[in-house]
Amino acid sequence: MKVKVLKFGGTSVGSTEAIKRSASIISDWSKKYKVIAILSAMSGETDRLIKLTKIFSKSPNSMDYDNAISTGENVSCSLMSIYLNSIKIKSRSLLSWQIPIRTSIEHTKARILSINQDKIFKELQDYDVLLIPGFQGINSKNEITTLGRGGSDTSAVAVAAAIDAECIIYTDVDGVYTTDPNLVKNAKKIPQISYEEMLELASQGAKVLQTRSVELAMRKKTKLSVRSSMRPKISGTIVTEENSKLENNTVSGIAYSKDEAKITLSRVLDKPGVSSKIFGPLAKGNINVDMILQNVSQDGKFANLSFTLPRGDLEKALKILKKEKINIGYKRINSSNTISKISVVGVGMRSHAGVAQTLFDTLGKNKINIQVITTSEIKISILIDEKFTDIAVQKLHQAYKLYK
Amino acid sequence: MKVKVLKFGGTSVGSTEAIKRSASIISDWSKKYKVIAILSAMSGETDRLIKLTKIFSKSPNSMDYDNAISTGENVSCSLMSIYLNSIKIKSRSLLSWQIPIRTSIEHTKARILSINQDKIFKELQDYDVLLIPGFQGINSKNEITTLGRGGSDTSAVAVAAAIDAECIIYTDVDGVYTTDPNLVKNAKKIPQISYEEMLELASQGAKVLQTRSVELAMRKKTKLSVRSSMRPKISGTIVTEENSKLENNTVSGIAYSKDEAKITLSRVLDKPGVSSKIFGPLAKGNINVDMILQNVSQDGKFANLSFTLPRGDLEKALKILKKEKINIGYKRINSSNTISKISVVGVGMRSHAGVAQTLFDTLGKNKINIQVITTSEIKISILIDEKFTDIAVQKLHQAYKLYK
Repeated sequence: MKVKVLKFGGTSVGSTEAIKRSASIISDWSKKYKVIAILSAMSGETDRLIKLTKIFSKSPNSMDYDNAISTGENVSCSLMSIYLNSIKIKSRSLLSWQIPIRTSIEHTKARILSINQDKIFKELQDYDVLLIPGFQGINSKNEITTLGRGGSDTSAVAVAAAIDAECIIYTDVDGVYTTDPNLVKNAKKIPQISYEEMLELASQGAKVLQTRSVELAMRKKTKLSVRSSMRPKISGTIVTEENSKLENNTVSGIAYSKDEAKITLSRVLDKPGVSSKIFGPLAKGNINVDMILQNVSQDGKFANLSFTLPRGDLEKALKILKKEKINIGYKRINSSNTISKISVVGVGMRSHAGVAQTLFDTLGKNKINIQVITTSEIKISILIDEKFTDIAVQKLHQAYKLYK
Repeated sequence: MKVKVLKFGGTSVGSTEAIKRSASIISDWSKKYKVIAILSAMSGETDRLIKLTKIFSKSPNSMDYDNAISTGENVSCSLMSIYLNSIKIKSRSLLSWQIPIRTSIEHTKARILSINQDKIFKELQDYDVLLIPGFQGINSKNEITTLGRGGSDTSAVAVAAAIDAECIIYTDVDGVYTTDPNLVKNAKKIPQISYEEMLELASQGAKVLQTRSVELAMRKKTKLSVRSSMRPKISGTIVTEENSKLENNTVSGIAYSKDEAKITLSRVLDKPGVSSKIFGPLAKGNINVDMILQNVSQDGKFANLSFTLPRGDLEKALKILKKEKINIGYKRINSSNTISKISVVGVGMRSHAGVAQTLFDTLGKNKINIQVITTSEIKISILIDEKFTDIAVQKLHQAYKLYK
């Protein structure tokens, strides 16, 4: 049995026309393959449901919240299946509890633990197309859980991995670009990219694929690609394992995120255990810390510690840290919410010197101050003042010769 | 454990204010009882979902259709639970597959077969209020099924019967009236009515309770009452077994339905088996026939056969019967869709003569022709020209002295 797993996002099922357009993509694939399509809710629907819940409570209890906000995907799967049946394609919607797709216990950001592939194969014997709602599953208590924003990508990769099929993400762009084409007119589509690079680009702000879905594809070695649901004939971007061809790229792409904030704690006692006193309470508060930078003072007793976090979590994080002041033992706390992060990503960096130098030169020439810098094997990330984001990305894109 | 089962219809959860108002009714009951509330979808929501499905197919496949249109109740249960939790009432939404509520296999008009009471009692140990979506269940293939229009009443009675609790239907009227108060200004609220009478009134057009829910309550001897969610302090109507007090009523109420059509087959061969040739194909086409009247011709060989059916099914029924013409063997087929049905209901009829006479006298005086008449132990139903409906109901209400 040859199976393709397709994923359609909110805009690809966001209107009658969009659903019919996506249906014709499914229909084309179904001529040669059994098809599983993972669908998002119609665009705007999840936000509508979230708003409804917030009318009744500023902090809705998460089990009922997940129940409410997970209904949008069920509706789009049902509508798609109704349409496919009407054009004589044997299909059915298959809800996450009917499979089941098992997740971890926690609501609003559960992780997928297992998918019952037997049920999927059994249904594929009776149907040519299965429509599975993305973004959700059920936990060990049989409660509906959701996977967090963009979770439908993860659902699609998880289903593909479970049945060892290729996963094609249909979205409103036709692939992964060297940087945001809205910002840099001559940004170039990347035909092939490694999991690692895609992961860095995704986690650094490229919105084409959700980070967790790339992680999962990398771990499971799932064939993954990105295509446009508007122009399905155009080849998109294939995400694969590294190969010799890929090694020619020094820098593959540049990602940026304006959704950043920075907190600096001054004169933190520099001794073992202090980090966990800072980041423990933040983790408990579900705040994901990103870049961390620590400078030890001259006398070696104290350190200044800076880290970045999503801008939306800044208030909450400050509240937590102020409450923990005595326990942590810092002197001053400062924060900024006018910073942005730029990341230069490429597997070729490992073997090519000079990538960082180009970055420093380019920003220096343009009088853009670097506030924080961190590096990994295949990525350099910097924090700069938010107002310089656009020009920095444009100049770097040029400097690394990424244009077409 | 003392439990009350409450049911709130679409208008009682149709807006933020309505949900909060219904929540305060739940809250009041929860001071002395564990509460199970069966909720409809917010008013208009099911229609919205039905419309959505019809965009994609005029006759949507029923499994996906049920999946789509059953989501509205899940949302209202989640929102209600979110609100109750926010005002410190320990509650949860409990979906039909989580219990489960098992139904027959067929979609769009399934019947409830069983409800797992153990799960309900287990959840009532942890929660003070359970919110269960009405109108739905799952069949033996674990597919979501819906119960047909008004099915939430049936869900409520079925849950109440399963756990042997009282069922209170909160709706937008404050009880069952002697007839439609919109039509007859001095119609009177009936404080107590027997299952049988309620059943006749419900099936004859009184829209307060769904027929199937009354049937079920009667069979299971479930305590049932109707109250207003707008004015919950006002006592409503209690539906119970007959008692001595009830026997004083000769006529309890008058129901009417303008949603009727009539078909007459002329010169049908009068021999055994012909009825099943007529009504078999109609039943297969899911058409519910109501009043049936047969006049044998003078020579005893042929009969004229008339019956009524819902107006919306007339076209379909005519098509079926014309196709079966040779098989049935009738000469002519006639139909009318400008008729209405009026039913006079009362358990006291059994022992009181003259009820029919009053009916004939009243209509005769007002020059209203009776087209068809059928009687049961506790009901007289007549068909008249639709245009006389209002005046006939008003005059009969007066003649039987039902006014307050």
